[in-house]
Amino acid sequence: IKQSQVSADVTEKWPYRHYMQKEIYEQPTVVGETLKNLIHAADRTISVSQTAVGLDLAAVQAVTIVACGTSYHAGMVAKYWIEQQARVPVNVDVASEYRYRNTPMAAGSLMIVISQSGETADTLAALRHAKAQGQQVLGVVNVPESTIDREADATLYTLAGPEIGVASTKAFTTQLTVLACLALALAKARGQLSPEDERRHVEDLLQIPARIEQVLTHDDKLQEVGRQLMHASGFLFLGRGAQFPIALEGALKLKEISYIHAEGYAAGEMKHGPIALIDEELPVVVVAPKDGLHEKTISNVEEVKARGGRVVMIHTAGESTGVAADFEVGIAPCGEFAAPILYVTPLQLLAYHIAVHKGTDVDQPRNLAKSVTVE
Amino acid sequence: IKQSQVSADVTEKWPYRHYMQKEIYEQPTVVGETLKNLIHAADRTISVSQTAVGLDLAAVQAVTIVACGTSYHAGMVAKYWIEQQARVPVNVDVASEYRYRNTPMAAGSLMIVISQSGETADTLAALRHAKAQGQQVLGVVNVPESTIDREADATLYTLAGPEIGVASTKAFTTQLTVLACLALALAKARGQLSPEDERRHVEDLLQIPARIEQVLTHDDKLQEVGRQLMHASGFLFLGRGAQFPIALEGALKLKEISYIHAEGYAAGEMKHGPIALIDEELPVVVVAPKDGLHEKTISNVEEVKARGGRVVMIHTAGESTGVAADFEVGIAPCGEFAAPILYVTPLQLLAYHIAVHKGTDVDQPRNLAKSVTVE
Repeated sequence: IKQSQVSADVTEKWPYRHYMQKEIYEQPTVVGETLKNLIHAADRTISVSQTAVGLDLAAVQAVTIVACGTSYHAGMVAKYWIEQQARVPVNVDVASEYRYRNTPMAAGSLMIVISQSGETADTLAALRHAKAQGQQVLGVVNVPESTIDREADATLYTLAGPEIGVASTKAFTTQLTVLACLALALAKARGQLSPEDERRHVEDLLQIPARIEQVLTHDDKLQEVGRQLMHASGFLFLGRGAQFPIALEGALKLKEISYIHAEGYAAGEMKHGPIALIDEELPVVVVAPKDGLHEKTISNVEEVKARGGRVVMIHTAGESTGVAADFEVGIAPCGEFAAPILYVTPLQLLAYHIAVHKGTDVDQPRNLAKSVTVE
Repeated sequence: IKQSQVSADVTEKWPYRHYMQKEIYEQPTVVGETLKNLIHAADRTISVSQTAVGLDLAAVQAVTIVACGTSYHAGMVAKYWIEQQARVPVNVDVASEYRYRNTPMAAGSLMIVISQSGETADTLAALRHAKAQGQQVLGVVNVPESTIDREADATLYTLAGPEIGVASTKAFTTQLTVLACLALALAKARGQLSPEDERRHVEDLLQIPARIEQVLTHDDKLQEVGRQLMHASGFLFLGRGAQFPIALEGALKLKEISYIHAEGYAAGEMKHGPIALIDEELPVVVVAPKDGLHEKTISNVEEVKARGGRVVMIHTAGESTGVAADFEVGIAPCGEFAAPILYVTPLQLLAYHIAVHKGTDVDQPRNLAKSVTVE
């Protein structure tokens, strides 16, 4: 008989109103904990290595990432990171699609499966399919000794602690933390990462916990934004680059707990259809840090404003948003590489407050289960 | 001075009420015309070949497909086809994302760019970026002598004729026709296609025009379904496998012309969030031909029904839908390979009728341009 190592205070939500709120607030701590296992803080280097992981990272020629739901969005961010840093092509697939289509697997490819519970049925089936084809499989899970942990060739753990709210928050940001470090480790193993870039990116990652704390100081503001927008029947969330999956994740959070039809889009795709939806009734949340794509995103937002849309800008504090937004939330500046980990938190808070305003069952939203162990 | 070769009757919509309606009805003809250029009908073989295209198809080790909007959905279907038939990994990207992220390009990879107008700004920029990296680029365009046609190393043409409705219909089905034949040509060049499979798939393709005619006989029924669902504020569209992008395209059509917030999802992802949206107010359109994934899709639909959702089943005529749907549209049986070309037409008609019921400007929906020549 194994005793549960979860102590009482881990599963107690007090002083928070909901587990989801508590778990959003735990993110600075758990991202920091997760990071400790992955880097050498003293010399600003990545400690995830060939030896540590037990996989031949230098030989990886292609990566396939398979996951579901929120974990799939983490995988999409990782695609941007790995392609950019390690210069390896990455395919990301939802597990229920991957497992049934007999995907060709490139020689020397690494499969990454991501699952908070480590028990997601479709993801597990994808892992087994890949292993049967002789693929190396790396798991990213939150629950040690889960089936995916046991069956993968290697595992990197998110140290999020038990996640009780059905809508995943701290599991997502810790998944991103692991995947960011893995992208750097792959880049290093393949000789694609200069010591300067390694130091710079690790420093950015080390600042994330404090930066999330700063985001949490906007809680009251996001509560008020949520109050003003709670009656909308739909939302769009826009982003570009590695912030595009963050927009998808913001939309998914709102769907899950407020039952509002929210959808994420690559900002550049707006003109190819979704802009027809824009009117005064459909708020548009834009994830637009001051980065290399900022100007492009702003030109998309201008089109939204010109058509009467209400805009919520999540942008870099101290910089001009570049557009007359209806609501603005300024986020402390941080390095572009690590920024996606930071920018999801205001979206989590926005979804949370809208759900609370609407009076839904935040921690147990209708129709959803925490761990999807059926197909 | 070049004279326009477009005759009066091509740009005249009579006896149809809208160009979009006319263009939906032209699909049997233009898919048939497009097919003529790509196959030898007499011996049921593909005529797209190394020599015909002028590209070294046998050497292709990886494929990247880049497009926007509806053309992007055609590219997503092509990913399933090429991976399945030619056993080559395919990456599909929206052009506005691809062009800014400096994607690593595998050696021996082929880039396919898809654009009705051949002038889509982001797609053209992606083409130029790839060519600058020494990639072979194949264009799929509807307008000969367009910029993409001129700059690509080779072009395959959709013979859809001028498309006037802003929401693309016949351009999409002819794009699919070209891409299906290209997938078979790649498979053949790589020695992955048996003569039996080639004959079988070509026969399926040859039957598509007549099958689309049959779908058009359901027009009145889809008009009635549209009448009953026109007041919904949102829709979900579900599919699996190569029908998943068809679900995305059905949702995009509805968004574009009826301004209803419709979203497409891989059916297996429902449980990971979107199912929280389901209630009596949100109709769910399910693309579920009797294929290898039918049973899995039905189990997702049962969950929707159990939660009070209204379901429109687009399924194989003469087969049980497997679930008590609120509306059923039976499509004549056809081979699984070619089925996506067929199953989009009922979704086009549904979107069309809902827009007409709502009284929107079907051919010129608000905020949209036919050809997006700005970034």
